[in-house]
Amino acid sequence: IKQQNAKEVKEMLQDLHPADIAELFDELSTKEQSFVIDLLDNEISADILLELEEDDRRNFLKTLTAKEIAEDVINEMDTDDAVDVINELSEEKKDAVIAQLEDQEHAKEIVDLLRYDEDTAGGLMGKELIKVYKDWTVITAVKQMRKQAEELEEVFSIYVVDDDDKLLGILSLKRLLTTSANTKVGDVYNDKVQYVKTYTSDLEVAKVMEKYDLYEVPVVDELMRLVGVITVDDVLDVIREEAEENYQLAAGITQNVDSDDNIWKLTKARFPWLLLALVGSFIAVNISQGFSNAMNLYPQLFFFTPLVAAMAGNVGVQSSAIIVQGLANNNISGSIWKRLGKEMILALLNSTLLALILLIATHFLMSTSYEISSTIVLALVIVMILASLIGTFIPIMLNKYGVDPAIATGPFITTSNDIFGLLIYFSIAKLILGF
Amino acid sequence: IKQQNAKEVKEMLQDLHPADIAELFDELSTKEQSFVIDLLDNEISADILLELEEDDRRNFLKTLTAKEIAEDVINEMDTDDAVDVINELSEEKKDAVIAQLEDQEHAKEIVDLLRYDEDTAGGLMGKELIKVYKDWTVITAVKQMRKQAEELEEVFSIYVVDDDDKLLGILSLKRLLTTSANTKVGDVYNDKVQYVKTYTSDLEVAKVMEKYDLYEVPVVDELMRLVGVITVDDVLDVIREEAEENYQLAAGITQNVDSDDNIWKLTKARFPWLLLALVGSFIAVNISQGFSNAMNLYPQLFFFTPLVAAMAGNVGVQSSAIIVQGLANNNISGSIWKRLGKEMILALLNSTLLALILLIATHFLMSTSYEISSTIVLALVIVMILASLIGTFIPIMLNKYGVDPAIATGPFITTSNDIFGLLIYFSIAKLILGF
Repeated sequence: IKQQNAKEVKEMLQDLHPADIAELFDELSTKEQSFVIDLLDNEISADILLELEEDDRRNFLKTLTAKEIAEDVINEMDTDDAVDVINELSEEKKDAVIAQLEDQEHAKEIVDLLRYDEDTAGGLMGKELIKVYKDWTVITAVKQMRKQAEELEEVFSIYVVDDDDKLLGILSLKRLLTTSANTKVGDVYNDKVQYVKTYTSDLEVAKVMEKYDLYEVPVVDELMRLVGVITVDDVLDVIREEAEENYQLAAGITQNVDSDDNIWKLTKARFPWLLLALVGSFIAVNISQGFSNAMNLYPQLFFFTPLVAAMAGNVGVQSSAIIVQGLANNNISGSIWKRLGKEMILALLNSTLLALILLIATHFLMSTSYEISSTIVLALVIVMILASLIGTFIPIMLNKYGVDPAIATGPFITTSNDIFGLLIYFSIAKLILGF
Repeated sequence: IKQQNAKEVKEMLQDLHPADIAELFDELSTKEQSFVIDLLDNEISADILLELEEDDRRNFLKTLTAKEIAEDVINEMDTDDAVDVINELSEEKKDAVIAQLEDQEHAKEIVDLLRYDEDTAGGLMGKELIKVYKDWTVITAVKQMRKQAEELEEVFSIYVVDDDDKLLGILSLKRLLTTSANTKVGDVYNDKVQYVKTYTSDLEVAKVMEKYDLYEVPVVDELMRLVGVITVDDVLDVIREEAEENYQLAAGITQNVDSDDNIWKLTKARFPWLLLALVGSFIAVNISQGFSNAMNLYPQLFFFTPLVAAMAGNVGVQSSAIIVQGLANNNISGSIWKRLGKEMILALLNSTLLALILLIATHFLMSTSYEISSTIVLALVIVMILASLIGTFIPIMLNKYGVDPAIATGPFITTSNDIFGLLIYFSIAKLILGF
């Protein structure tokens, strides 16, 4: 259908939401993409760009001049989105685009927002908000509000400030609709308002908004002056990204990559963990070689090394995942010792059950002597308990010293448990069987 | 401070948000909890209960009679929250509570909502919404809206319906504020409205709301009649729970548990995966025993089994995590074969690099003969490539046949890769070294 017959395409796209058009976009050539963008209103084009994947947007923006970006794209966006897009440009183009912005007020706000770190409340917030002064009457407030609301897509809250722009509280639309016109704003606003500081981290902002079920949270600077507002849709992205990053870390993937990224980027994200695992496993190999004099007498011990390593790894990952998640949700209560005690009981219970099953299985299915299989099984129980303690202890310690505990799940814990597991396994075997 | 001196406690709690009081709640005895709840307004008490962890809420509700629950708790809640709380009660108590509800309208709505599955839009939605008919004038709409708004905490959207209650579109508050009083609603509403069906799954609802950046989405029944509305705070919970479940599955934990759950619940969530890992590893043990005749000639082969198993497991988990995440976000494009090809190149690149490092390390640090170490290294490369192909292929297949691909990360993939890994490793060694 896209043989450049403008009218038909335009009609077809008219009824679609920008998010849907963005999805179609993926399948078009760069030339077709430009054709579609030129065809549509700047406002819709800007919305489509926002819905694209970061890489696709970056590529598309490369085809535009600084002037086009400033006039057709940035001009139509809310300040917070504009800042995100500008941040994706190269340094030179960034300056060129800002220089081309015609609306001085908009430009000033954008420059102001660019100062903040992307991972803080300042980096998430937009400048679009409705602000009324406490000395205004309700009727003045409504008038001013209508004027301010013209720039906004939606109105949730009206913020009340004093003459120094300090945040005092909020006024609900509902309250505004049901109060007589001459009442002072200062007499009817609600002073119980949740806010965040410009330097609050994005994860913390997400926690505050979730805890208090907020749709919008005002951002204040060090002097309590209202400087912006964060809406819940920005926080949805933060929550999803955090969850994805933790998930990827647990699987041994650093950096936020997705399956469509190029091989070089994927290798960079994966290789370091594999190297770590290789080094760890190599140490484990040397440990088992250290016990090679047992090989003639008790060859079975060596058949079971992958089993011991696997069980130590699995238990460790389970324990660490629960703790990491608890730390992320702030619901780890009680002392470390109590928690380690609980993990120990849990591991003892699980490993004893598994040990019995293994004992029966080796007895019936393998020609292992009773002496050796009971040694293996006893060592397994001890290795599993230790692995679960390590899996609990390391994330708690990392968290205590300010390191993201999520790195302690996955390859890190599996590898360290491989090493300790085999060391303990062979030591116990040596102690009992004596070789 | 909580020696039952009511006045002081009440003053202290007055300034706190219910979510903060709920956090304090954890540290109180049941008696103290009742004391606090009795002290506060029913509305605040109800909010506190909603903010509690599920287990704590369940325990607290056990101390109340059906009449108390109905009058002091359910009565003060929005319908969607009321339904969640009622669903946590035992069957008998459920009926008793509903029978005690005095507000017949509220009771009817709750019973209506109880019909829906918890994991669907129907289970998430609330009945609180503002609805205007298309034939009304703007002034009538505003009046009716004020009346309807009394029951609501916040107003986001006004839904426009026809005489059969069929959803036609939305009217923004902004529009309402800026339109003359005698205009018909039917002339000014926006008919481009995103909606979901009562039977839409909660994950799908979350996707729709994220994609279109919605704060609220209307829910319609099979006849397009407006039956409820879902707000973004409910969807935040869905997103977080989904992310947590996937994370736990990857770590080998079924059921949504947290670290404060009791040992029995934790065992039930963890044991099945450990058992699976044990069975898998036991098979791997038997495979290496099958090659035991090589032990005298090439004992080094057996020192390296944990390394081969670990690398196969790690590569498999990495590959599967990326695919599972891609499937969850719906951004897996292109054919399966192309994807497998890419994974293969990636694995070849990573494993060749690692193999070279391992070759050098064995040469300098171990007394392994060149012949054996090159055999081990070659086998490692092939095992890693196969492990990454399995890690990519299984989730795609599971997804194709309607099984949640997230189960294919973690223990499942590690264990199957252990088995295949060792089988291939020994087979290649046998082929080259001939034993």
